[in-house]
Amino acid sequence: MTGPAPAPRSRFEQETAVSPSAGGYDGFLTPDWNIGENPNGGYAMVPAVRAMALATERPDPLTVTAHFVRPAVGGAAAAIETSLVRAGRRTATVTGSLVQEERERLRLLGSFGDLGQLASPTGWDRVPPPVELPPVDECVPRQDLDQGVDLPILKNVDVRVDPRFERGLSDHAEITGWIRLADEGPVDVMTLVLFADAFPPSIFSLHGRIGWVPTLELTVHVRRRPVDGWIRARFRTDDLAGGLLVEDGELWDDSGALVARCRQIAVVTPA
Amino acid sequence: MTGPAPAPRSRFEQETAVSPSAGGYDGFLTPDWNIGENPNGGYAMVPAVRAMALATERPDPLTVTAHFVRPAVGGAAAAIETSLVRAGRRTATVTGSLVQEERERLRLLGSFGDLGQLASPTGWDRVPPPVELPPVDECVPRQDLDQGVDLPILKNVDVRVDPRFERGLSDHAEITGWIRLADEGPVDVMTLVLFADAFPPSIFSLHGRIGWVPTLELTVHVRRRPVDGWIRARFRTDDLAGGLLVEDGELWDDSGALVARCRQIAVVTPA
Repeated sequence: MTGPAPAPRSRFEQETAVSPSAGGYDGFLTPDWNIGENPNGGYAMVPAVRAMALATERPDPLTVTAHFVRPAVGGAAAAIETSLVRAGRRTATVTGSLVQEERERLRLLGSFGDLGQLASPTGWDRVPPPVELPPVDECVPRQDLDQGVDLPILKNVDVRVDPRFERGLSDHAEITGWIRLADEGPVDVMTLVLFADAFPPSIFSLHGRIGWVPTLELTVHVRRRPVDGWIRARFRTDDLAGGLLVEDGELWDDSGALVARCRQIAVVTPA
Repeated sequence: MTGPAPAPRSRFEQETAVSPSAGGYDGFLTPDWNIGENPNGGYAMVPAVRAMALATERPDPLTVTAHFVRPAVGGAAAAIETSLVRAGRRTATVTGSLVQEERERLRLLGSFGDLGQLASPTGWDRVPPPVELPPVDECVPRQDLDQGVDLPILKNVDVRVDPRFERGLSDHAEITGWIRLADEGPVDVMTLVLFADAFPPSIFSLHGRIGWVPTLELTVHVRRRPVDGWIRARFRTDDLAGGLLVEDGELWDDSGALVARCRQIAVVTPA
């Protein structure tokens, strides 16, 4: 049966899409989501997470961990392999691997489910309240901050930083603000994976731009499907040692619901 | 050359040991670290984490994630397979899989390194201060709390809970306290993996013993090698929805240093 033509996809959906291939799934990372010379980590994760969702036949990454073993390549095809570990009633566990130019870039492990099907024992929900933020127009577009690096991603992602946390001005390592797709494309669980790694490192609010902070490992827990609109975000670290930092993040949607948590361990590489 | 006989190993070291086998590593999970009918998740992880450390030739799990795809079996051999993803200068990434009775129980992904070799850019370390606790003798042994379940693990792990967080008495979901091996065996990075999952679920402090809270996924970041002595611990959750909760934990050693962080997503299963 022939239905109506599918709705035009957002640029994010087009540029993170995957299609089944002989060995798994094919995708392509464009250079338009780069931080400097390489794709943003969250962006590079999304095609792999889409493939893992397809492999499990479950839409939502309840918990997904990516290890960034080599920088991804902006402007190159990506071959994604998945392997189902176990499909249970509630969740399915799966591995993912993203290869570009014959070298593995990301290795992933996640458990997927259907957030629309999860039942909550009555009366037990606890939801952290959203971070308080100044209005969007009183926040600072990320491109107006001193970056010292090209940020092609900012053509695609609109990031507004709470001015209390402009770099070097804060007494602790925290960054809060607003985020959405620049084309106002829909917010869904996959955009949350992108947004989990799209703010400046929170350590910059304390020390200014100290160099590179490449992610070693990022885990995202998607907690609810978001409604459309701006996402509120908070990222903090109080744990920097041995040249490694652990940064926690939370994302809330326009209804005020916590929609995702994330934590990453990253390498601090002075410029 | 013949050296002195190796020092007697602690019970923890003996009962989490692995040895190379044809297909990977062999271990054995005893029933003496059970929570109810099945081994504690942290205990079941340790042989796999030891195998992953051996496979990478790096001693320390900088970040290790375990997905618990089936309950482990106390009193059964464990076959562990590892696969090296990439060995770099600073870190090496590796997968692990723990199989008992021909069924996979845990799938893991981690990056390992040498905490003794990590250099810290001067002046940037930030270390969260240790949680304040009453003296050990003023805390409540876990076996004195109403459990409703057999806890063989408490023969091996000495857990003392801050009485402010006895179950059902708190206005938020937090548990703090002290932990060590019952035989006062040495504290090392592998004991921290065990201790990351050895306290009662912090949700019990708010709601009392509400049922089972099996771990779906646990990630541990070991931040420093601990000194011997009691470990201070804090576990909290402010995020329970859809029958899943996210719990964060921190562990500090006797010098007051943060030695590990952990986060897990767990299923709330009313009794």
